[in-house]
Amino acid sequence: MTELLQEEQVTETELTLKAQEAKKAAFQLAKATTEEKNEALRIISAQLLEEQDFILSENAKDIAAGKQAGMNDSLVDRLALDAPRLKDMADALIQLTRLNDPIGETLEKWEQPNGLAMTKIRVPIGVVGMIYEARPNVTVDASSLCLKTGNAIVLRGSSTAINSNKAIVQVIRRALEKSKLPVEAVQLLEDTRRETASQMFKLNEYLDVLIPRGGAKLIQTVVQNATVPVLETGAGNCHIYIDKTADVKMAVDIAINAKTQRPSVCNSCETILVQRDWAAAHLPELVTALQAQDVTIHGDEAVQQGSSSVVPATDEDWATEYLGFEVAIRVVDTVDQAVQHINQYGTKHSEAIISTDAASVEQFFNEIDAAAVYHNASTRFTDGFEFGFGAEIGISTQKLHARGPMGLPALTSTKYIVRGNGQIK
Amino acid sequence: MTELLQEEQVTETELTLKAQEAKKAAFQLAKATTEEKNEALRIISAQLLEEQDFILSENAKDIAAGKQAGMNDSLVDRLALDAPRLKDMADALIQLTRLNDPIGETLEKWEQPNGLAMTKIRVPIGVVGMIYEARPNVTVDASSLCLKTGNAIVLRGSSTAINSNKAIVQVIRRALEKSKLPVEAVQLLEDTRRETASQMFKLNEYLDVLIPRGGAKLIQTVVQNATVPVLETGAGNCHIYIDKTADVKMAVDIAINAKTQRPSVCNSCETILVQRDWAAAHLPELVTALQAQDVTIHGDEAVQQGSSSVVPATDEDWATEYLGFEVAIRVVDTVDQAVQHINQYGTKHSEAIISTDAASVEQFFNEIDAAAVYHNASTRFTDGFEFGFGAEIGISTQKLHARGPMGLPALTSTKYIVRGNGQIK
Repeated sequence: MTELLQEEQVTETELTLKAQEAKKAAFQLAKATTEEKNEALRIISAQLLEEQDFILSENAKDIAAGKQAGMNDSLVDRLALDAPRLKDMADALIQLTRLNDPIGETLEKWEQPNGLAMTKIRVPIGVVGMIYEARPNVTVDASSLCLKTGNAIVLRGSSTAINSNKAIVQVIRRALEKSKLPVEAVQLLEDTRRETASQMFKLNEYLDVLIPRGGAKLIQTVVQNATVPVLETGAGNCHIYIDKTADVKMAVDIAINAKTQRPSVCNSCETILVQRDWAAAHLPELVTALQAQDVTIHGDEAVQQGSSSVVPATDEDWATEYLGFEVAIRVVDTVDQAVQHINQYGTKHSEAIISTDAASVEQFFNEIDAAAVYHNASTRFTDGFEFGFGAEIGISTQKLHARGPMGLPALTSTKYIVRGNGQIK
Repeated sequence: MTELLQEEQVTETELTLKAQEAKKAAFQLAKATTEEKNEALRIISAQLLEEQDFILSENAKDIAAGKQAGMNDSLVDRLALDAPRLKDMADALIQLTRLNDPIGETLEKWEQPNGLAMTKIRVPIGVVGMIYEARPNVTVDASSLCLKTGNAIVLRGSSTAINSNKAIVQVIRRALEKSKLPVEAVQLLEDTRRETASQMFKLNEYLDVLIPRGGAKLIQTVVQNATVPVLETGAGNCHIYIDKTADVKMAVDIAINAKTQRPSVCNSCETILVQRDWAAAHLPELVTALQAQDVTIHGDEAVQQGSSSVVPATDEDWATEYLGFEVAIRVVDTVDQAVQHINQYGTKHSEAIISTDAASVEQFFNEIDAAAVYHNASTRFTDGFEFGFGAEIGISTQKLHARGPMGLPALTSTKYIVRGNGQIK
């Protein structure tokens, strides 16, 4: 018991100390010029390549430990770094220097009748807490996005990536020492026990926002337990609705793309809704095309009638994010029914209508409650890079602060500057 | 035990049923036109006046019960309605019809190289949960702001205002029946037990945001316990920094105004920081002027030396929001020290510098972390109406979503509309 208590005190001290340092650094960072921030990113980029051997040898320790612990291949792959991956990370840092710095941007400017001159400008959020799983690339990615936007960061990665993360953060901090930015701007919690994360959830005194990055379970744990505001990047149960008037080839191509191009990601399609008349004429073609891509189809009764190889769909299927080569298909009569189904079962992420009827499209756009709604395009485009943001913090499925793909402005707050000449109320 | 369980089920049923109804109404409301919403606000305005006798007689029950329970005068005053106050509420509804409807507004519009046409538009948030204290005017105010922005609302007021709130919501719903908006858009929880509020905190399935309105304790309870995102309208420990170069009359006038014009509100001044040289020449004048307004002064040693009637200030004073005729005064050497003090003890609300030196002002603007920073003006202007927003949801002291005075746009979210012609990834 005494030992446990001591351990907890140690933990809290690491977290509290590092969070305090980050908060102090945040005040300095807020004053950094765009060129100082870009210069730091360039130095980090070079340092990552220069210290490649060190990073890869530390990463090898994590890989070896993971394999010994029976980690599956896809997790090992997420954890593994190699020279090309490090090169990608270094290149991404250079890309980031080319993006506009949102900090200091004037968002609004006006004068009040009493002569007060009002300006609303973008400022950094302050200190970002990042809680993520065994992907060491997030360590570089999250740190660099925060530095670009003048935020300090407290990283809490997975224990399975601890050697990689420590090495990367050491390298980043050695680079920061050569820059004009404070070294304390990037903090890594080396204690990766669950309790440390739980303490981070409630560290409102030092953390301005928490960003969980990982599976649905991690995100829900953070949302359910955090008192620090959370930027929620959630699940995607995305739909394609094929309207009565849909072009057949376009509908099939988009459905195949949205389902199979990369099924493991949140913007892939999980349920296809097909209007009854279109289904009567073209459903077999859609089913055949999907099955040719080894997609298992869970269908309602109407879909089952057309093919013996269709698995009967249950209510649970409508709510399932398969994230693999499976899809649910339901036949509906109208746009109304499609909208109702999507608003009931969807996760407000990305929803598409394939149609040549303007009224149906407008109804779909107006009535679907989602971060992104598409006409005649794949849901796979919901992504910061595809939207042209040049960077992506994640895809927000919440409605406050930022919704949909988040670029650099999602890591900013605002401040009102008011200039007077003696005004009193 | 069985009875308790039954009670809890009943409670959960009222909350769940009403939240479900609100969510359904929100989908309809999102489609309402500006004119339909404004027409509903005009009908509510007229209905409030028409049913004035009913509202006042129900309000009288709450007043009587409050007085019997020993409620203090200022709380009774907050609870009390009369003809002029109802008239103000009715007038405010008409004012609201004159404000721009933010819903549907195009925020950004661009085309991607692959031909996707992107539009970012404003949409309602969905369902707002409002938790507030014994001020029946909030019932009208919050409902009307939500209707204007196409949001449904679940109101949870205080038990001490339950008769007033029931009457007002009945009147609003009778008005909505005559309008094109769904009656279910405005819901009042009649069960005002603490447990009901606790259940609201975690009702993520139906509520998109919670807005607590009331004292610091209420707000902190919501922030600490809610899993639904919270729009935090917090405390204001606001400062006036009087720089070396400050105009004497202006500095004294602003300090007096910021402290005494309405000391009970969050944007009033709680600590005055005075630069040492200015203090040497003019502190007695400031102290005398404040004392002439019956302001008790808690001062550091330098301030105490100048006057025997100054109460010694402790560390706690720097962190105290007096909300009354008390102020803390500290002498500092530089803008640096003032900034450090404010960033340490402030609540990031409203901070002012009185100065004629441009460099000091720029440093203050850049380094102070607050929703609003002022040069040569009173902190009392941090207010949605004073900022020209025409309405105010509250003053946000958080950094995400909205910061500072919140107008109608704070009650909105966004949606990306993407138009393609067959794009796949």
